[in-house]
Amino acid sequence: MDNGTLQVIPLGGLGEIGKNMTAVRQGSGMILVDAGMTFPDDEMPGIDLVLPDFTYIREHANEFKGIVITHGHEDHVGAVPYLLREFNVPVYATKLTLGLIKSKLQEFGIKKGDLREIKGGDKMKLGGFGLEFVDVNHSIPDAVAISIRTTAGLIFFSGDYKIDLTPIDGRPMDLARMSSLGEEGVLAYFGDSTNSERPGHTPSERSVGETLGRIIGEATGRVIVASFASHLHRISQVVEAAKAHGRLVGVAGRSMVRNVQIARDLGYLDLPKSMMVEQRDINKVPDSDIVVLMTGSQGEPLAALSRVANGAHKTIEAGPGDTVVVAAHPIPGNERGVGRTINNLMKLGAEVHYSPLEAVHVSGHAAKEEQKLVLSLLKPRYLVPFHGEFRHQYHHAQTGVELGIPRDNIFVLENGVGVEFKDGKARKLDKVASGMFLVDGGTFGDTSDSIIRERQQLSEDGMFIVVARINAQNGQLLGEPDVISRGFMSQQDANGLIGDSRDVVTQTLERTAKKQITDWGELKKEIRRDLSGFLSDKSQKRPIILPLIVEV
Amino acid sequence: MDNGTLQVIPLGGLGEIGKNMTAVRQGSGMILVDAGMTFPDDEMPGIDLVLPDFTYIREHANEFKGIVITHGHEDHVGAVPYLLREFNVPVYATKLTLGLIKSKLQEFGIKKGDLREIKGGDKMKLGGFGLEFVDVNHSIPDAVAISIRTTAGLIFFSGDYKIDLTPIDGRPMDLARMSSLGEEGVLAYFGDSTNSERPGHTPSERSVGETLGRIIGEATGRVIVASFASHLHRISQVVEAAKAHGRLVGVAGRSMVRNVQIARDLGYLDLPKSMMVEQRDINKVPDSDIVVLMTGSQGEPLAALSRVANGAHKTIEAGPGDTVVVAAHPIPGNERGVGRTINNLMKLGAEVHYSPLEAVHVSGHAAKEEQKLVLSLLKPRYLVPFHGEFRHQYHHAQTGVELGIPRDNIFVLENGVGVEFKDGKARKLDKVASGMFLVDGGTFGDTSDSIIRERQQLSEDGMFIVVARINAQNGQLLGEPDVISRGFMSQQDANGLIGDSRDVVTQTLERTAKKQITDWGELKKEIRRDLSGFLSDKSQKRPIILPLIVEV
Repeated sequence: MDNGTLQVIPLGGLGEIGKNMTAVRQGSGMILVDAGMTFPDDEMPGIDLVLPDFTYIREHANEFKGIVITHGHEDHVGAVPYLLREFNVPVYATKLTLGLIKSKLQEFGIKKGDLREIKGGDKMKLGGFGLEFVDVNHSIPDAVAISIRTTAGLIFFSGDYKIDLTPIDGRPMDLARMSSLGEEGVLAYFGDSTNSERPGHTPSERSVGETLGRIIGEATGRVIVASFASHLHRISQVVEAAKAHGRLVGVAGRSMVRNVQIARDLGYLDLPKSMMVEQRDINKVPDSDIVVLMTGSQGEPLAALSRVANGAHKTIEAGPGDTVVVAAHPIPGNERGVGRTINNLMKLGAEVHYSPLEAVHVSGHAAKEEQKLVLSLLKPRYLVPFHGEFRHQYHHAQTGVELGIPRDNIFVLENGVGVEFKDGKARKLDKVASGMFLVDGGTFGDTSDSIIRERQQLSEDGMFIVVARINAQNGQLLGEPDVISRGFMSQQDANGLIGDSRDVVTQTLERTAKKQITDWGELKKEIRRDLSGFLSDKSQKRPIILPLIVEV
Repeated sequence: MDNGTLQVIPLGGLGEIGKNMTAVRQGSGMILVDAGMTFPDDEMPGIDLVLPDFTYIREHANEFKGIVITHGHEDHVGAVPYLLREFNVPVYATKLTLGLIKSKLQEFGIKKGDLREIKGGDKMKLGGFGLEFVDVNHSIPDAVAISIRTTAGLIFFSGDYKIDLTPIDGRPMDLARMSSLGEEGVLAYFGDSTNSERPGHTPSERSVGETLGRIIGEATGRVIVASFASHLHRISQVVEAAKAHGRLVGVAGRSMVRNVQIARDLGYLDLPKSMMVEQRDINKVPDSDIVVLMTGSQGEPLAALSRVANGAHKTIEAGPGDTVVVAAHPIPGNERGVGRTINNLMKLGAEVHYSPLEAVHVSGHAAKEEQKLVLSLLKPRYLVPFHGEFRHQYHHAQTGVELGIPRDNIFVLENGVGVEFKDGKARKLDKVASGMFLVDGGTFGDTSDSIIRERQQLSEDGMFIVVARINAQNGQLLGEPDVISRGFMSQQDANGLIGDSRDVVTQTLERTAKKQITDWGELKKEIRRDLSGFLSDKSQKRPIILPLIVEV
């Protein structure tokens, strides 16, 4: 690639919310902006997490100079340990983000990570690029946008952002710097599309603090607040409300305990030791003197709040007189789980406060008017809507059009499809490898689609196993075949079918013996065909059929 | 039960949205109000539908005099065919509801159903009760509430309702009749709680008509509108908007075709034959001259709109210049599927209109102010919040308290827990059988929890099958054991593990042979234990392990 050419290739995070990762290439240098993971959906049974495909990075490993991270959410940092296992490159991020990354690396037993701290306003060189970090607001502190000076011009990655002019940490988005970058001239803007369907301006995080203060102030019994463990602004507001009403703060749930620890250590959470109650001591504090922070705001079955709601938490209970605040909004797909948690807590007699009935949550992403403001300040020649499903990218593009960006200068891309800037012009590139890499159990190998399909079939229709003992010489069946089912039907229903299935297989093998078929592959095919037809007739189900032939 | 005693026992529909069914008993008479089904959630793999438990009905079969149905939605009529298979009782419902029930009975091959038509305003006797039907509005035409005169007093079931004062069919909720029943004195009110969390008043269905008219008026290409097939008010408004803009109406999707047919036959849809285009002829009509009605508004993978969105519909396509309206709101749990459909349609280049971005949907259930109005008119002594999850029942109860009903007179019940009225007093009854009956494939037998758990385990971790040939005399292993996995891991990863698993099983069987263990149960237990420990160590997964021992 000649020196005046710039390529930006999204390897994740487009057409989806999650696993954001973008390769930026120029001359002989390539850097990654963010390296996130995503959580599997219902259609990926057994999968623990999903990573972007690293193939493209491997193909350009010799150019790979480093990773820059915008903020500490899993969909922006979750792939870092997997990358560092394979590539020895430095990781640049702000203090809190690095703290969270360090804790992940420890979990993975990676000691050698080359982690380098930056902060908003810093400028640095990496892989031939001139990087500059710009403060933004988000639902986690210490988030930055990244401006990159290239031979083709200045490009700007917003990361996830909102514009909070009254932020909890007194660190508003650096609109002044963005404004002067805009004056200087921005070639292309790669911006957060998540909330591009929402009109208006996302409210300040501070508005949630008012609600939390009122609820905690009015409560007489124990107060439990569930939130994302990474939402340290919200956690900070819970702590402030607890202080204001003379309550101590208990902390429960593995990731909440860990993140509160990191945030306190690094100075992102003003929670003095004297105010903090460890999980095992929560029941020693009178109900009226404590607020308990915990995980489980998404109704995750094993998280602290779900266990409390099911009466299954080992130390913490909630009941009449207690107040529970679910200080989050369900991520699409989690509505049922969150609903179940709320219902169960109410059944226990607790008073439950939740969104949208009460203002206990605001989004961390910019709505349409904020997107307009950013576009107005940066005045980019090209717009590439980032971070979001297609419909979010689409609406972000529409907003760009409203602000006068020519349609031809807006690139609604998909994962693997990059854009090249050269001689002041931009063009779409051919698609590169950019699928999903499924992480399954302790293995780091990929889990193929065929396994996922197999699991789906197993879960829908179960499995039928046929064991036939066969005379090796003449292919004659010895005795009755065994038929065993798992996940197919209740025993009482299956019993009749199992006897009949045995007959079906016996007939099949009598027929094949008569035809003197002794090829096992052939025998298995015949068994599968006959039994599958029979079962689908009788049960309208298509279990996986596994014929096992034992030669005797 | 003496003659002055009345029992009302919800057998489904409480603590959930779905499978509504309530037994009302007095003296020697029992009737059912509604008989619905529900759809399985993600935690019931392979299940087709869920019915209420019929045990209680069986126990009182000799008292069972009939079924009265409030409206034609699946969660109110879906269990009718299953009941009629087992009990020979009459079914009372309005004309449209009966039309929908008839079509279901045909599907089930039931010819003998004793179906009797009623309409709002009708009074009749059944099982010693005095029944009266009262018009209400809902997201399907011909919905009624049911007032029941009993020896203990008058009770009132709202069914699902909203108050639409400008309804599409010119048939508003009969507030006057409810008012005079209230004057007469209502003992107990069993009311729809679905929207009890929502402030204000649900907008009139007519407001959607205005949006549909505007969208269809502005469209230049083909227009596709997806809606619930049972939402004949909405369908009617689509037809009216098509008429107004000189477009024909195409109909696609099995249940849409069937329901449009039923509604036209019975006079609930004014869609002249000359305006209607059958699915196979849709492509013969110029795009600008047609509106296509179809199923798939919930993103169901096999429904018409999802197929169109995937480019997989056998006749209908959508692309640039076309307009698609998703005229429904996702039911909790369907958000991801609906999102996927919208994204895919946009990727094809179609213009997509959806809620809440545009007013293409209003709810069919009463919000808080409507619930207050009904409570004010009926002035019931007792309130039993019906139809809803616990949180909806809870908020409905709160509204009752606001309107002056004493807390002791409000019963927030769960399925199986009835209430008894006797001598002017009410008390909660002990719980009766009221679980879920899972319908799986073609079988009508129940699917037990253990099968569901087995399927879940299969889908998460897959299955390992071990086949060991053993000398029947001395328990010695003959040759190497076979190890086969399904749904466990990709072959490349599993290969190493499978070889190692073979060694583990070999060692187990050598050990058991040395100990002269020949009991198969014992052998299998040992194999399972050793292999499970090994696999969980190596893969952090716990597949189902099925040891098969073949004696030779």
